[in-house]
Amino acid sequence: MKELNLVDPVDGIYYGAIEVKGHDIVKIKKLDEEKRGLSYLLPGFVDPHIHGAAGVDFIDATYEGLQKMEGFLRKEGVAACLLTTVSAPLEKILKAIDTLETYTQKNPHTIFKGVHLEGPYLNPNRRGAHELKYIRDVNIRELEEMVSHPLVRLMTVAPEIEGFEEILEITKKHDVVVSIGHTEASYELVEKIYNKGVRRFTHLCNGMKPLHHREVGPVGGALLNDAFVEIIVDGVHLCGEMVRIIRKLKGVEKLELITDSMAATGLGDGEYRIWGKTVHVRGRIARTEDGSLAGSTLTMRKAVSLYRSFTGADHLETARVSSYNACVDLGLKRAGRIKKGYSSLLVEVGPDFEYIKPFIDDSTG
Amino acid sequence: MKELNLVDPVDGIYYGAIEVKGHDIVKIKKLDEEKRGLSYLLPGFVDPHIHGAAGVDFIDATYEGLQKMEGFLRKEGVAACLLTTVSAPLEKILKAIDTLETYTQKNPHTIFKGVHLEGPYLNPNRRGAHELKYIRDVNIRELEEMVSHPLVRLMTVAPEIEGFEEILEITKKHDVVVSIGHTEASYELVEKIYNKGVRRFTHLCNGMKPLHHREVGPVGGALLNDAFVEIIVDGVHLCGEMVRIIRKLKGVEKLELITDSMAATGLGDGEYRIWGKTVHVRGRIARTEDGSLAGSTLTMRKAVSLYRSFTGADHLETARVSSYNACVDLGLKRAGRIKKGYSSLLVEVGPDFEYIKPFIDDSTG
Repeated sequence: MKELNLVDPVDGIYYGAIEVKGHDIVKIKKLDEEKRGLSYLLPGFVDPHIHGAAGVDFIDATYEGLQKMEGFLRKEGVAACLLTTVSAPLEKILKAIDTLETYTQKNPHTIFKGVHLEGPYLNPNRRGAHELKYIRDVNIRELEEMVSHPLVRLMTVAPEIEGFEEILEITKKHDVVVSIGHTEASYELVEKIYNKGVRRFTHLCNGMKPLHHREVGPVGGALLNDAFVEIIVDGVHLCGEMVRIIRKLKGVEKLELITDSMAATGLGDGEYRIWGKTVHVRGRIARTEDGSLAGSTLTMRKAVSLYRSFTGADHLETARVSSYNACVDLGLKRAGRIKKGYSSLLVEVGPDFEYIKPFIDDSTG
Repeated sequence: MKELNLVDPVDGIYYGAIEVKGHDIVKIKKLDEEKRGLSYLLPGFVDPHIHGAAGVDFIDATYEGLQKMEGFLRKEGVAACLLTTVSAPLEKILKAIDTLETYTQKNPHTIFKGVHLEGPYLNPNRRGAHELKYIRDVNIRELEEMVSHPLVRLMTVAPEIEGFEEILEITKKHDVVVSIGHTEASYELVEKIYNKGVRRFTHLCNGMKPLHHREVGPVGGALLNDAFVEIIVDGVHLCGEMVRIIRKLKGVEKLELITDSMAATGLGDGEYRIWGKTVHVRGRIARTEDGSLAGSTLTMRKAVSLYRSFTGADHLETARVSSYNACVDLGLKRAGRIKKGYSSLLVEVGPDFEYIKPFIDDSTG
């Protein structure tokens, strides 16, 4: 067993001994109060919004591509994530889901816990890097075909589009969480659908009408209601002060750090062909030719490090915003906690966040 | 003596008896705990930002004009206010201050407690209804002439302009509070001058670069730092949700309701000639020909009523945001509290804010 400060979002921080075997935490023993100055063990990261990494893009990934992506993400401390589609033809979206299905059957312990459908029912005015030609009107049969797949857990939709009521109905039937995104929804609309149970926002502030003091729109709706919000903490999609404002308003129980990362993540600067577009990555910032941000090249490790530097968050808060909250929100099992029976994919963090690295139990080595 | 619920921002709410004589509260007796269902007595309103009312504009008011304005404001429950200039030629600003000086000498108990200089050192890009030709570079001699007048207590300045350091020095020498307004200051600049003691914002969100999630600017600076902020709660300058967001971030100790009201206040809709411009008032909203908001026709009574409806504030919070906070901020004496020796200009408010009216002690009548 290995001894260090254990950070469980429910039980709090304590000095303890832990033993992992294979995919599981098999033993935990509380020894003492938190010992400052020693390492902290956090649940592995949970990222509900990732398009790709390591040269692989989920929307057209092969089996081998998924293997490669998983290898990269595990080294970044990710314990669970939702692979995210972009607006694309139906067959392309279904093919990606099928590939993942094959993959999960052969790799039951994969970190890929399901699919996040981002689009295609978005507001074209707030499409960001989504291709205009693939953003389309709601088609019930198509919708049903996508969300009825058991791997689909989350869908980002603009609630102001025609057919949103039907989306609500069908996603509910298939237990898919709806997230508000790529939208120009008014505050009133957000409040109305909040009361119908839609309580989640996709990359808050990005891909939506900005907050204005005469009409606070979707951002205001997210800030004033008790909804979960994804935030891209890379210092570009949101500046550090905006992260502090969001945190101050939302508290730490409703924030979910995400990467929104795409294939170029982990590859360095350069020119990439992604989602039918040329994307330039400079200084880790990915932009399409028209200057729009095209996802990110962020990793959860980097996001956590920046969140800490912007907010001064401690280890417990970090565990919440980087893993536990998303599990609560999306009903993900076996992740987000330091507890017997939970995933052995954990993250070791320095007392002052000097290092953030996947945990390796070398005590029995 | 009259018995009702007394609302003192420091001592809290209690059922008590009060006696006023002339300009003063002369006796107070605590009788019991707050009795719900009965009237509440609040300190009279304190408005640090008022340009005019009842057809009178401070910048070119006569003695009689000031009398008329004071009569109107007292009926609206105002116990203290700062008369506010707009960007104008020096001689015009000085003449307005002189008129007020004569007035205060003859009326030592006037509600006009001093002058708020709004401009002329503003960012022309955020001038609102200020005339471009009167916004100018800092001139030390001119500045000294204005702020050295003992009636001047407050000055709104854009901190990004050249000469701001000199403004800081000279206002400090003359004990004039500096307020950030009509500005495009970056967050960094706001934080820098906050550390130098500049901790106040003029009509937050209005006349300044809006908050953006990649550069939160002056609005973010106001929200994240422990500064006082003026807010125009008329439902137009700020929507109700924005008021709630500001309140949630700032707490109730840093908010100051203001009217920013101009001459047309109390006169009804119509076309007015104000500050060299034609101003149309429709549905109580005042706009210049180019559509900019031109101050307001708000009264403190209306502001309090709207603040209550937006936030659900109780009587104690109302007393803070409508009177006490501004007194703390600006060092105004004898106002903002229900206490022996304080001003007898008080406001009676219904248990559920059904009425808001100046208090009349008819117990001995």
